[in-house]
Amino acid sequence: MALTEESIGELCGVLGNKGVLTGNAAGPRYRTDPRGIGEVLPALVLRPANTDEVSRVMAICHAENQPVVVQGGMTGLVIGARPQAGEVVLSLERMNRVEKVDPEAGTMVVQAGTPLQVVQDCANAHDRFYPLDLGARGSCTIGGNLATNAGGNRVLRYGMTRNLALGLEVVLADGTVLSNLTGYLKNNTGYDLKHLFIGSEGTLGLITRATLRIFPKPRTQIVGFCAIDSFAAVVETMTHLQQSLGADLSAFEVIWCDTYTATISDVAGITPPLPTGSAFYVLTELMGSDKRHDRDKFETALQDAMQKGLISDAVVSQSDREVDNLWAVRDGMAEAMGQQQPAVGFDVSLDIPDMANLESTLRQRLADALGKVRLFIGGHLADGNLHLVAKHVGADPQPRELIESIVYGLIGEIGGSVSAEHGIGTLKRDHLPQSRTPAELAVMRNLKDMLDPKALLGRGRILPPRDHSENITPLSRNPDNEF
Amino acid sequence: MALTEESIGELCGVLGNKGVLTGNAAGPRYRTDPRGIGEVLPALVLRPANTDEVSRVMAICHAENQPVVVQGGMTGLVIGARPQAGEVVLSLERMNRVEKVDPEAGTMVVQAGTPLQVVQDCANAHDRFYPLDLGARGSCTIGGNLATNAGGNRVLRYGMTRNLALGLEVVLADGTVLSNLTGYLKNNTGYDLKHLFIGSEGTLGLITRATLRIFPKPRTQIVGFCAIDSFAAVVETMTHLQQSLGADLSAFEVIWCDTYTATISDVAGITPPLPTGSAFYVLTELMGSDKRHDRDKFETALQDAMQKGLISDAVVSQSDREVDNLWAVRDGMAEAMGQQQPAVGFDVSLDIPDMANLESTLRQRLADALGKVRLFIGGHLADGNLHLVAKHVGADPQPRELIESIVYGLIGEIGGSVSAEHGIGTLKRDHLPQSRTPAELAVMRNLKDMLDPKALLGRGRILPPRDHSENITPLSRNPDNEF
Repeated sequence: MALTEESIGELCGVLGNKGVLTGNAAGPRYRTDPRGIGEVLPALVLRPANTDEVSRVMAICHAENQPVVVQGGMTGLVIGARPQAGEVVLSLERMNRVEKVDPEAGTMVVQAGTPLQVVQDCANAHDRFYPLDLGARGSCTIGGNLATNAGGNRVLRYGMTRNLALGLEVVLADGTVLSNLTGYLKNNTGYDLKHLFIGSEGTLGLITRATLRIFPKPRTQIVGFCAIDSFAAVVETMTHLQQSLGADLSAFEVIWCDTYTATISDVAGITPPLPTGSAFYVLTELMGSDKRHDRDKFETALQDAMQKGLISDAVVSQSDREVDNLWAVRDGMAEAMGQQQPAVGFDVSLDIPDMANLESTLRQRLADALGKVRLFIGGHLADGNLHLVAKHVGADPQPRELIESIVYGLIGEIGGSVSAEHGIGTLKRDHLPQSRTPAELAVMRNLKDMLDPKALLGRGRILPPRDHSENITPLSRNPDNEF
Repeated sequence: MALTEESIGELCGVLGNKGVLTGNAAGPRYRTDPRGIGEVLPALVLRPANTDEVSRVMAICHAENQPVVVQGGMTGLVIGARPQAGEVVLSLERMNRVEKVDPEAGTMVVQAGTPLQVVQDCANAHDRFYPLDLGARGSCTIGGNLATNAGGNRVLRYGMTRNLALGLEVVLADGTVLSNLTGYLKNNTGYDLKHLFIGSEGTLGLITRATLRIFPKPRTQIVGFCAIDSFAAVVETMTHLQQSLGADLSAFEVIWCDTYTATISDVAGITPPLPTGSAFYVLTELMGSDKRHDRDKFETALQDAMQKGLISDAVVSQSDREVDNLWAVRDGMAEAMGQQQPAVGFDVSLDIPDMANLESTLRQRLADALGKVRLFIGGHLADGNLHLVAKHVGADPQPRELIESIVYGLIGEIGGSVSAEHGIGTLKRDHLPQSRTPAELAVMRNLKDMLDPKALLGRGRILPPRDHSENITPLSRNPDNEF
């Protein structure tokens, strides 16, 4: 803990009473995130209300060499936002307003702590559409979405969060405000600095505000749920739908058969749209603009695929409620995977042809090493991104290192990515060198040193601590302990 | 000229006879670019055939403190690729192959010197579509498109070049190869380094190869050409079409009336699709996937706009030839603007509401300062990007500084961008501080120092030379001069 009593007084002076939490007042939400095991009481929680306050408290922390971890909605999956002992938490929860909506220009200016769902609803109220969507929508924040370059269910059509940010405001480690909130689609004025910070998981700067891109609201949304008997037919169906639906194809999600069975049997409130027994289940969606023709376009495309023998069975939503029910199956897959705890989860990208034998190869290797293993696979196939859960039946704790070495080993052999959308944090840090070359890691380190020379922001996330000097002094977890 | 005879010998050893041009063998194409005035004979032209050769020659130049300017198709518009005296040219023209096409994954791996049109044609031969398109398609190269983050006519639907690059290979100033050619849509494995180099105009590293995203080929392409009587109606028409056509809306280009008149009277081979006399002319396009319904969707949307009184007159293409003819009017606008030479051109982004009074305000200010001035305006309205040419009638040379101070002065007042898609180069370098804050410029400088500490790459482009030590020794332009 680097802060002196005097500097804590300064921080309180900047933020006021509402802005600083100490001791047990720093409740459970600041102490861990979903994948974190055990709680860590942060040294101090700073809750700035605006960019100027973020800048001023960072200047104080910088002067005092105080490590800081930024927190948004605490829904990240790679143990990035959980404090480490000795870190001060900077929570952006009070910066939670939509500042401006311009439906004609297709832009919104939003504070980082605004929950995703608030942004979605606000766009909707202006007859526009903010396409980013993920299960944590009610809790996760725009700042966290940007810092982790969140993916989700609509990447196929609208891209990752990176593609939805037109302007960004960032506070650097020393309190410098780097602001470019212009909302232009085209702005080739030197280096596009926002891309440094998007996806950097709070390690290069703190995102405080953003200008987001919003879209005309789709007028139609139709979901199909299909049973398909071979992986080759899954791929052919995808290509067929990409060609038939063009840019209106907004989802192509695949669930492997065992995972489908687990989903419909283990998750409450799901009505199975199709019987089990097929090798693969696909949720596909059209989001279009043409109420008169879109249903015909979608149903014709699916019928063509059935006539070609690609799809063996299918249902198509006839109402918004049926859209929700079919998506509930896809969302239920994530829930079914989560219910396997203790288990080891993965979020990987790989070339689509390499997906064909993924399951059989992994089953074999895991069985050879461990004996009885359950394996759940599914995800955003058209994006090349699968989620995967492996569980050594009966083992608690799981043999995490062995399972990871087998799964990442295969991903390495086929040149895949160890993180498609969840990021690196601390959880996958040791596997990062598998997906990035030494030259790339060296440039990443140089970027970190350049923007945060004291290594105060998100220490140990993405990149390992540089040397002994970056280790954080363990903090006593006794809440009675004075700072 | 920093190279010794010995190091020139080394370069020849790496590249062979075909790979090095000296003296007058460095023909006109290496000496200037479209906006450059006068030719500069480069100190040496290096023509590597692969990434390894680029790496080896950069290592030699780095050891010898030899400034290098990279050249692609030489079609840039901001005097970026024209050599400065004392610079060695590194031309990527021999790295001009498409290495791999994967239609299912929707990716291509392409060498930097490949002309855009070759990439378009290659995608097309695989029943896929590479959407980037601009007038210079036959000459400009993928490397140049990436280095300048080229825009063009399809940004509205497909984004800038940045959005089309999934993987990138770059050679740094010291010869280090930074390679990540994975073709994943989702790859959150630490900092996304490719975005540092895309749009950095050859000043941070040399792009040697890229993995590009290709799309299903649109099955329909329909163009409408409309006359509209007020700017408010232009904006309302755009919003209406965005909602009615959704993601299929692939262009919404506006031509101001005087510019339309100049285009149809001055440019050869253009058949006027509509009579003059309206305030604005709009080219709009649908690219879709549904042969049965798309024409109805498009024509209904335009008819609705006519019934609402937004559009006063319109024609719709009935064949591919008519598509080409209508696009020829839009392309002719650029040609008509070019024919105004000597004149001063601009490529700006601004908020759409600010476009309403742009013409009248500029006309007034230019007339007050200069007397008789002609003004041509048009461009990618839905992207917030206009091209603008101002010409003080009868003046040669033009009072460039005065005209720029008036135009950029207004752009500054309304918070616009001094470069939407052309970039900065040397031509707009002095205006960059108008669009970026001192804090942003400082980070840009630090990035440059970090990646190119000797300031060898694209010296003086985007950022001014740091100090006297970066000035390049003037080179005698006598071709008989020995290196």
